[in-house]
Amino acid sequence: MNMGRTVFYISDGTGISAETLGHSLITQFQNVLIQSHTLPYIDTEEKATQAVEHINKSYNLDNEKPIVFSTIVKPNVRNIIANSHSFVIDFFQSHLGSLEKELGMPSSQAVGLSHAVQDIERYNSRMDAVQFALRCDDGVHTEGYKTADIILLGVSRCGKTPTCLYLALQYGIRAANYPLTEETLHALHLIESLQTHRERLFGLTISPERLHDIRSKRRPNSQYASLMQCREEIHRSETLFHKEKIPYLNSTTLSIEELSAHIMASAELRRDG
Amino acid sequence: MNMGRTVFYISDGTGISAETLGHSLITQFQNVLIQSHTLPYIDTEEKATQAVEHINKSYNLDNEKPIVFSTIVKPNVRNIIANSHSFVIDFFQSHLGSLEKELGMPSSQAVGLSHAVQDIERYNSRMDAVQFALRCDDGVHTEGYKTADIILLGVSRCGKTPTCLYLALQYGIRAANYPLTEETLHALHLIESLQTHRERLFGLTISPERLHDIRSKRRPNSQYASLMQCREEIHRSETLFHKEKIPYLNSTTLSIEELSAHIMASAELRRDG
Repeated sequence: MNMGRTVFYISDGTGISAETLGHSLITQFQNVLIQSHTLPYIDTEEKATQAVEHINKSYNLDNEKPIVFSTIVKPNVRNIIANSHSFVIDFFQSHLGSLEKELGMPSSQAVGLSHAVQDIERYNSRMDAVQFALRCDDGVHTEGYKTADIILLGVSRCGKTPTCLYLALQYGIRAANYPLTEETLHALHLIESLQTHRERLFGLTISPERLHDIRSKRRPNSQYASLMQCREEIHRSETLFHKEKIPYLNSTTLSIEELSAHIMASAELRRDG
Repeated sequence: MNMGRTVFYISDGTGISAETLGHSLITQFQNVLIQSHTLPYIDTEEKATQAVEHINKSYNLDNEKPIVFSTIVKPNVRNIIANSHSFVIDFFQSHLGSLEKELGMPSSQAVGLSHAVQDIERYNSRMDAVQFALRCDDGVHTEGYKTADIILLGVSRCGKTPTCLYLALQYGIRAANYPLTEETLHALHLIESLQTHRERLFGLTISPERLHDIRSKRRPNSQYASLMQCREEIHRSETLFHKEKIPYLNSTTLSIEELSAHIMASAELRRDG
């Protein structure tokens, strides 16, 4: 028996809230999610009617009710979705009422307040953080380290660059990264510009097998990608982290989101928002 | 009377789900949010007890109950948070029960399934997309365009690079970008490598005033940042978009998340997850 359901994430905004929480919930049920669709910017009755057609089509195909996770502010739009052939979890309807009661005031029922650039400062700080991450990527512009919030260290392909960019985009954190090259690993010694900012250093490590996989995609059968080389580099980088008392994290089983959140927590970094 | 409340986002994972949805909800109440704290990886009774101390301290300081948005899977950890001096909205407790009923099976009550690298393929596709965005940033490596999902066009500082990186990190989309320089804008003509992939082109525009602000931060009092120059470039880029029938979006009042979600919807791009 096929237990699979089609899942819809529906929102009058970007859909990111409905997606992230809906995904957390549905992944608590193994093998249930068979296909998902995100329908953002459903902010008129007309668009809601189109969304309902889409949902009902899935119902007819699957012969099972689709699961709909929705964050829609306007009641008239929300009600149209509620009348589709689906099981709807409406995060706004579920919680706005109890919040209104607790806070003793009505909600504004305004669409798109969450991600709007109400706060230009916040937007600018993220743009700046991205520029910073790009400028201080891969060990260049070490003179920028004095304004870094954090400096990630690790061997080639352990996830430094995507993590820096995510920290910048999601949290406005100024993250630089410095590659542990053979030279540094051989000397087991940090260059002066790293020594100067050692309280901002944070290490990344990874299992040699996973590193071997990643590098093999890039340069198959190279010395660089060989398991022996990966083992040696990882062993030396972890030795360096211990010797220099640099906190570090193993990225093998973590997504970029998780890596970033762990680093934020471990390094006690403050978000910009 | 001060209506402000301290808000906590608490999770046994990254905290991203609690943050995004909690923030959407609380911003429906103007001036309520005075300060927020995200407490990720609260996955043991001990950490939950520490979190409660943090919450109760805020209660004593504010003399108002903090609002807690929580996504915690384990009931024993969740119950500790429930006993703090706060108003708790628990997204898991609220919805898991009804989902279990609808799906006719128990939830796994396993922590961290949502963002875990269960799907290495998905992780790899995002890493690849980030590498692609970096390689094809700012008009370089136009030979890579044949594997692009989308190519963003726009004048300097209109938000192309952060948007490409966000599309890569959040959705695994391979996004290149090409700057509309004075040369292109003067000729009002697209180079051949853009012509070849015109179905993947997408334009960004911005208000001249906002562009002037952004550029002035970078190069104050320059010709490049002058309002006149910004007006001329924006006028010409919009003319080019119309002439070449390139869909485009005005980024002035949109956050990077919103820009990305709009582009995904307009260009009908498929997510990798």
